[in-house]
Amino acid sequence: MSAAKKVAVIMGSDSDLPVVSPAIRELKRFGIEVEAHVMSAHRTPEEAAAFSHNAKENGFGVIIAAAGKAAHLAGVLAAHTTLPVIGIPVKSSTLDGLDALLSTVQMPAGIPVATVAIDGAKNAALLAVQMLALSDDHLADALAEMKQQMADEVRKKDSALDVSEI
Amino acid sequence: MSAAKKVAVIMGSDSDLPVVSPAIRELKRFGIEVEAHVMSAHRTPEEAAAFSHNAKENGFGVIIAAAGKAAHLAGVLAAHTTLPVIGIPVKSSTLDGLDALLSTVQMPAGIPVATVAIDGAKNAALLAVQMLALSDDHLADALAEMKQQMADEVRKKDSALDVSEI
Amino acid sequence: MSAAKKVAVIMGSDSDLPVVSPAIRELKRFGIEVEAHVMSAHRTPEEAAAFSHNAKENGFGVIIAAAGKAAHLAGVLAAHTTLPVIGIPVKSSTLDGLDALLSTVQMPAGIPVATVAIDGAKNAALLAVQMLALSDDHLADALAEMKQQMADEVRKKDSALDVSEI
Amino acid sequence: MSAAKKVAVIMGSDSDLPVVSPAIRELKRFGIEVEAHVMSAHRTPEEAAAFSHNAKENGFGVIIAAAGKAAHLAGVLAAHTTLPVIGIPVKSSTLDGLDALLSTVQMPAGIPVATVAIDGAKNAALLAVQMLALSDDHLADALAEMKQQMADEVRKKDSALDVSEI
Amino acid sequence: MSAAKKVAVIMGSDSDLPVVSPAIRELKRFGIEVEAHVMSAHRTPEEAAAFSHNAKENGFGVIIAAAGKAAHLAGVLAAHTTLPVIGIPVKSSTLDGLDALLSTVQMPAGIPVATVAIDGAKNAALLAVQMLALSDDHLADALAEMKQQMADEVRKKDSALDVSEI
Amino acid sequence: MSAAKKVAVIMGSDSDLPVVSPAIRELKRFGIEVEAHVMSAHRTPEEAAAFSHNAKENGFGVIIAAAGKAAHLAGVLAAHTTLPVIGIPVKSSTLDGLDALLSTVQMPAGIPVATVAIDGAKNAALLAVQMLALSDDHLADALAEMKQQMADEVRKKDSALDVSEI
Amino acid sequence: MSAAKKVAVIMGSDSDLPVVSPAIRELKRFGIEVEAHVMSAHRTPEEAAAFSHNAKENGFGVIIAAAGKAAHLAGVLAAHTTLPVIGIPVKSSTLDGLDALLSTVQMPAGIPVATVAIDGAKNAALLAVQMLALSDDHLADALAEMKQQMADEVRKKDSALDVSEI
Amino acid sequence: MSAAKKVAVIMGSDSDLPVVSPAIRELKRFGIEVEAHVMSAHRTPEEAAAFSHNAKENGFGVIIAAAGKAAHLAGVLAAHTTLPVIGIPVKSSTLDGLDALLSTVQMPAGIPVATVAIDGAKNAALLAVQMLALSDDHLADALAEMKQQMADEVRKKDSALDVSEI
Repeated sequence: MSAAKKVAVIMGSDSDLPVVSPAIRELKRFGIEVEAHVMSAHRTPEEAAAFSHNAKENGFGVIIAAAGKAAHLAGVLAAHTTLPVIGIPVKSSTLDGLDALLSTVQMPAGIPVATVAIDGAKNAALLAVQMLALSDDHLADALAEMKQQMADEVRKKDSALDVSEI
Repeated sequence: MSAAKKVAVIMGSDSDLPVVSPAIRELKRFGIEVEAHVMSAHRTPEEAAAFSHNAKENGFGVIIAAAGKAAHLAGVLAAHTTLPVIGIPVKSSTLDGLDALLSTVQMPAGIPVATVAIDGAKNAALLAVQMLALSDDHLADALAEMKQQMADEVRKKDSALDVSEI
Repeated sequence: MSAAKKVAVIMGSDSDLPVVSPAIRELKRFGIEVEAHVMSAHRTPEEAAAFSHNAKENGFGVIIAAAGKAAHLAGVLAAHTTLPVIGIPVKSSTLDGLDALLSTVQMPAGIPVATVAIDGAKNAALLAVQMLALSDDHLADALAEMKQQMADEVRKKDSALDVSEI
Repeated sequence: MSAAKKVAVIMGSDSDLPVVSPAIRELKRFGIEVEAHVMSAHRTPEEAAAFSHNAKENGFGVIIAAAGKAAHLAGVLAAHTTLPVIGIPVKSSTLDGLDALLSTVQMPAGIPVATVAIDGAKNAALLAVQMLALSDDHLADALAEMKQQMADEVRKKDSALDVSEI
Repeated sequence: MSAAKKVAVIMGSDSDLPVVSPAIRELKRFGIEVEAHVMSAHRTPEEAAAFSHNAKENGFGVIIAAAGKAAHLAGVLAAHTTLPVIGIPVKSSTLDGLDALLSTVQMPAGIPVATVAIDGAKNAALLAVQMLALSDDHLADALAEMKQQMADEVRKKDSALDVSEI
Repeated sequence: MSAAKKVAVIMGSDSDLPVVSPAIRELKRFGIEVEAHVMSAHRTPEEAAAFSHNAKENGFGVIIAAAGKAAHLAGVLAAHTTLPVIGIPVKSSTLDGLDALLSTVQMPAGIPVATVAIDGAKNAALLAVQMLALSDDHLADALAEMKQQMADEVRKKDSALDVSEI
Repeated sequence: MSAAKKVAVIMGSDSDLPVVSPAIRELKRFGIEVEAHVMSAHRTPEEAAAFSHNAKENGFGVIIAAAGKAAHLAGVLAAHTTLPVIGIPVKSSTLDGLDALLSTVQMPAGIPVATVAIDGAKNAALLAVQMLALSDDHLADALAEMKQQMADEVRKKDSALDVSEI
Repeated sequence: MSAAKKVAVIMGSDSDLPVVSPAIRELKRFGIEVEAHVMSAHRTPEEAAAFSHNAKENGFGVIIAAAGKAAHLAGVLAAHTTLPVIGIPVKSSTLDGLDALLSTVQMPAGIPVATVAIDGAKNAALLAVQMLALSDDHLADALAEMKQQMADEVRKKDSALDVSEI
């Protein structure tokens, strides 16, 4: 097993790209090779099934799937692989993402989808990095460093906070 | 085209059988040949895809799919066929069926699922009959008769209603 | 039975026309004769009842009904016909369409409404085509072709996807 | 105008009788003549429409309608009369009555339904009495007296409350 | 009892005026004397209680109350009168009016509030007119006429509907 | 200011006593004098208003109010006092307490209600103790001790946890 | 105990400042010393824990915490102190604040969070003042005065209301 | 990195053990060493923080956390580690687990929690196994085998399905 494992980022529609981009960016920041695809659980089910079925032997470690409404994509991908699949429920024009959240997270026993927040692409990427870091100390160190930086940013914002004029 | 078209009733788990049974019973009452299967969008995705892909040439006219939680079954079946697919959202132990309803009905453009009420198996069957009746006058007559009987039952109950002791 | 069957598209208010238009457009694309009406379950209940009651003998095969809020239109039409009725829940200014969805889909046993996604007009049309295609091989072929094109579009978008600059 | 106006209590199914009974009982307690019917917006739409259409000339002052799920009954009755229609959303086996509440209360402009709480039959009756009391001083006095008794009961319970053993 | 009864329109905040205005306008259209007030169940509870307590002897027949969020206004007014109180749940910046709807409609047994749709001011007015019309034939005729006009408008829109260019 | 301040526990109905009892018990455990009442925002609004209006001069420091459905009680009490009012939303037969939660917590600016979890009576009591402890070091010490005990109990349960047989 | 107690206003992110500002402003208006911080339950958990742990001995009387989404901040602060903690659920880009509300209010027994309305910063401040006023008569008087002014403003708006042109 | 990595199963209360047990059982079935603890984000926050902070160097690869209501446990653990944290939202006596789901999944950017279905303990375990399998071929093989068995069970149930008597 090695850090060379790739992460796939699959979106149900190319209109999901703005939501998904932070995931791609974050993965790259950690030096992880990303492969992104538009694949639909409903419009190109064979491609989705095939991609997922072959993902492990094609060098992927984690699959991230983003979809809105009746978001079946993550679940369908999870059905065809033993790799961990991370689901990003995407908010669409109605119901504020609740439909996508429930369609992604409420998976039946046997086929888990690791679900993050609605439109939570950055966390999907971090979760993927955490998984890969289980066997890659460099990634683990990079995560620890990022955690530190994140805390520092909050501290800096705290210091900069000036409520005297409120 | 003919009344000889069969209806498939697919359930995601055999524990859904009590919910689904009224659909099977109703279809039989109309003399329609029913074929029932346990198939899972997630546990046996290939079987589900293959069944749906071949349903038309195997003599099916309509597919009814019942599933709970992140109910992907109807959508996954609809992805592989041009036959109308009817989805029955099944209530499970949490969220009162809302998860299954949204997962079934909020399909993306291009792949419709004709959704009925939560646990609404009887209506799923009637909807299938209505579809088949479009090219089968006998079924159309039977539906009209059933509608009449249903109204008569309501009328009978109305006549029997005695609120004098309340 | 024949492909000459018309589809009725009924909207509860003329303000629903923008939501409903994709359904009309899609039906026309399949060469289906469409008749559109503004009819209200509450403001012109007699017209709605009469239309539905006579729809079958007037040559309609399917009725599509779009309404928002306490969306009774599809249910009221379904009460007066044995034709399949497809309901489009329309999102209005409050509750994000959840009221219309529940009012449309949660029909009591005996009177089904084939419900599609909130504002899901295109799918309502496709569902109607699927129903009519049960007795019209040309329509069935056209559906299969559309499915193919839809998949091709997704594939094209997948090929065009370039995340190198993200 | 007179206190002799009757109140109609319409239920969508005879299974709603236990929910509706408190309304009937309460109306009787106020000496109001009640007529109860099982009528369905979907199974016997003509009867429902006719009843409502003729209710005023048949001596009714108020119509109370109780229904569950996609509860169209109150709205359909309201479509055919200028009498005030009171809707009782009935809790059914799924969604805890939210579907019935939204289907009853979210009426479009022009056709109001005076909605009470889920399963709120007693309040439906009191609301009807309040309406009739607008032109009936005896009813108005009876309402004032009931209000007084209700307050006395609360006061009695308050006096009886003993929390020393808790 | 007479048509001379006034209708009070109470809003919890003057920011609710745009929502409430259609009610005032509608009542005036029926020639009903309207008195409008800003009163808060929480900020001026004594005024609200006093107004409601004296409303009947001050010549009011119906009280309409509009409030958002934890909308207690209608319930608090109903607590102090035997007149029918109509509640308009007002949508505010969060939760899409669901909070106001539940706070208004879910009244405990004994104190009904006749609830209309979220932001449903026009229907609140019509409901008030329907109540007053119980003892005022002119109002009843006016309601019947309005119902007719409303239907005519729908018919006109139906005739004007042209979907040939869609 | 002193620890001698009492806490009032007001319930909207005596049927709420089982829900409210843990609050009374907890307050007693801290040696706080409790006065409990059944008072209704809707059935005995004058008593509720008067009690709240006089609570401060009658020696109360905090008012706890428990109510279900359209739970106006806490808000109505808060309207008549400057004492902190704690609201316990009570779960009733429908909507799982969501109605009471929203009716209690979504108070308009100017009149806060300190809301705890649905049926969260124990926490309501602890919150009251925390408030009184601001000027009572003995209570503050008792709270610290309770916190310690609570932690110890969790630690004991952790030690006792044996999953070897699972 | 004295009025000199400070109030801490903690926000999970500096982007919450616009939501939180009314609380800071209101506290200042009452002459209460405010200390504001950006601290995250998840990004700087140690700082949050330490702040809360030391808040009492650092002269704070009340902690106000504002956070959105899975809003753990108030609960985490409450875990480390016996001071009352007030939670402001902040509306974010999805779910309209419902996630933050439930994450803040549904605290387990033992660790209360006094929750106010979604984005209800002003009420959070007033609640803090009410708590401090338990041992500070000047604050209590100021609250009573504010309540009076608030009522006067409503009365002024009522007097100014002119609906003659509506 | 090795298969010797342990999985921690943390529950917020020992009452969650029945919900969590399937996770423990499943992990054992895969030969993974499990350590289970009762730790509370609110009652023993230091223990929780310390456990999580040291989990990596203590040989854990994944942390599973189960909690109900305002379920902060998974998020609080995730705040102190770079290991992947899996959250199981636990259904409690109100709101059907929706509160726990939103409190667990809606994490802010930077601190992901891999959320599974409400009460979805088995899937939490499988997800942990999938993560560990990234660097353990035996686990990967075991997962593939389990997937096969799961499919076989569905197929067996499908074969056994007899609807002739329905």
